[in-house]
Amino acid sequence: MPELRKDPVTGRWVIISTDRARRPSDFVREKVQIRGSGFCPFCYNNESKTPPEIMAYRPDGSARNTPGWTLRVVPNKFPALRIEGQLNRQGEGLYDKMEGIGAHEVIIETPDHSKTLATLLRPQIEDVLWAFRDRVVDLKKDRRFKYILIFKNHGDAAGASLEHTHSQLIALPIVPKRVHEELDGAMEYFRYKDRCIFCDMIQQELETGVRLLAQSETFIAIAPFASCFPFEVWILPRAHQSAFEESMKPEFERFALILKDMLMRLDQVLELPAYNFVIHTSPLPNSSNDYYHWHMEIMPRLTKVAGFEWGTSFYINPTPPEEAARFLREAAVQANVAS
Amino acid sequence: MPELRKDPVTGRWVIISTDRARRPSDFVREKVQIRGSGFCPFCYNNESKTPPEIMAYRPDGSARNTPGWTLRVVPNKFPALRIEGQLNRQGEGLYDKMEGIGAHEVIIETPDHSKTLATLLRPQIEDVLWAFRDRVVDLKKDRRFKYILIFKNHGDAAGASLEHTHSQLIALPIVPKRVHEELDGAMEYFRYKDRCIFCDMIQQELETGVRLLAQSETFIAIAPFASCFPFEVWILPRAHQSAFEESMKPEFERFALILKDMLMRLDQVLELPAYNFVIHTSPLPNSSNDYYHWHMEIMPRLTKVAGFEWGTSFYINPTPPEEAARFLREAAVQANVAS
Repeated sequence: MPELRKDPVTGRWVIISTDRARRPSDFVREKVQIRGSGFCPFCYNNESKTPPEIMAYRPDGSARNTPGWTLRVVPNKFPALRIEGQLNRQGEGLYDKMEGIGAHEVIIETPDHSKTLATLLRPQIEDVLWAFRDRVVDLKKDRRFKYILIFKNHGDAAGASLEHTHSQLIALPIVPKRVHEELDGAMEYFRYKDRCIFCDMIQQELETGVRLLAQSETFIAIAPFASCFPFEVWILPRAHQSAFEESMKPEFERFALILKDMLMRLDQVLELPAYNFVIHTSPLPNSSNDYYHWHMEIMPRLTKVAGFEWGTSFYINPTPPEEAARFLREAAVQANVAS
Repeated sequence: MPELRKDPVTGRWVIISTDRARRPSDFVREKVQIRGSGFCPFCYNNESKTPPEIMAYRPDGSARNTPGWTLRVVPNKFPALRIEGQLNRQGEGLYDKMEGIGAHEVIIETPDHSKTLATLLRPQIEDVLWAFRDRVVDLKKDRRFKYILIFKNHGDAAGASLEHTHSQLIALPIVPKRVHEELDGAMEYFRYKDRCIFCDMIQQELETGVRLLAQSETFIAIAPFASCFPFEVWILPRAHQSAFEESMKPEFERFALILKDMLMRLDQVLELPAYNFVIHTSPLPNSSNDYYHWHMEIMPRLTKVAGFEWGTSFYINPTPPEEAARFLREAAVQANVAS
């Protein structure tokens, strides 16, 4: 029997369908494999083919825009938003608009074209997280920005246009609606219960265990109760924390470990799937609060562009998260060893 | 310069990007062409291969589940929801769920496998609209249902699993969040202005003309100001009307005409694109009101599964709707002749 489940934060209902494809092998898809053929602007010696770097980790002290880096952040060559200018808010009859001011940056996670985020060493993944943080801290100084969206498109089916492993960051002069929905839902729960809804979810998931994927002393990974997508994975800090960029150093280490573990499990169970991840965190400038809890949402791209879901934000998920959790838990992965 | 535009109803901001692909020829995609090879459960003589029909238009008075029909409605063979049972609402700790009760039906628009909705004759398209209405009127009697979603997936990239032209209907025991957002936005505007926001939009679009695609005495087609997708098209009744199923007979005729016109224009300008459409209408059971205005949203599938848009509901649209409107207006299409 299919089930309708409500996301406790946003209030969105999702159909958890049980009569359709559900097991990992039921999803027809292309493996994300690194072909490595052709010119790549993210490889060593092609530094001049990207816009000049914003920052880079260069343990050898090499010069800007030259090889030697271990991680490099550059502006997106085809940015969705422009950094220069004023917002210039204005009306047009009953419509509202403003200039497309913002930042759109690319985090090149490694010079090694053959790697994926899952196959990087744990300390390299930690560096990617540090780069996210460093960029957020820097962009926070620009008071035009209200939200920083950190995300990754991995594989063609997830919208990646270059295969060399990279993440992206968009600094926005507005808070996206979906973030507002989460904030509002979390705030309403807090008003009612005086507790963070995500903290309560973590508590319940640890108690029941059916949707629990992994836990360390600092993080928890779960298959969310009202998953919109098959094999969706959330990673949350166990202690209340509203903003990603305020994480402490040991937390980045722990986050890198559980993220690697989850990506390796997804790669094993779903055979190198395309995926997106998005870091959900509090808006700027005052990102410390009692009601919101930052987390990462990982969405494997297993189903075709899901038709009407786009226009309706109404999702049908063919894999109950409890089943997804069972497959992901049973995967034989040793992230510790690989680090 | 990119622009941020706010959807006046939902409050969602969209980036109208101007430095990326924008012209029809900039989008790489597969044409939706009817191959016609292999077995098709929607063709004549295969009536037993679908679940028994719910209704059919049979001008020749032929028997149920036999050939002779011009349009046929059957339950989806792999339904997302089940018609039998009770909702059985319950909690699970802090989570809420209910049984997946609902209807999931398929409207087979013609027995002719070689046709698409765009190439059907105008009276045939009118019959499709009548079938939508007839099913809504029937399902409305079931008080478990709160919303009826009518949509179409055309082409592989839009999520169609069978190429024989068909639409779908899902009757839901809840109102989808996106519909709630629209209703709330429209209601807020009505409280403030004592006018329907869609009526005001229609007025403004007729006055400025820059996003106007077509108008008849009863309908208007526009490229919406804050289009989420390139070449998005909305069709709205010009006079205020909150519920699709309450349309009068001459309106169905007029709607069929403008719908055919728009689909033919999209086919010409974008070279047979995959697309989805969704009818946005008021929830059941009391679908008459002053603040909401039913309409159809047509979304061509030109861009790849747009990565982070899924998780954030934050959209980047590379084609300003004013440019899309220019291309669609200039298309040489004569829907009248084809009828």
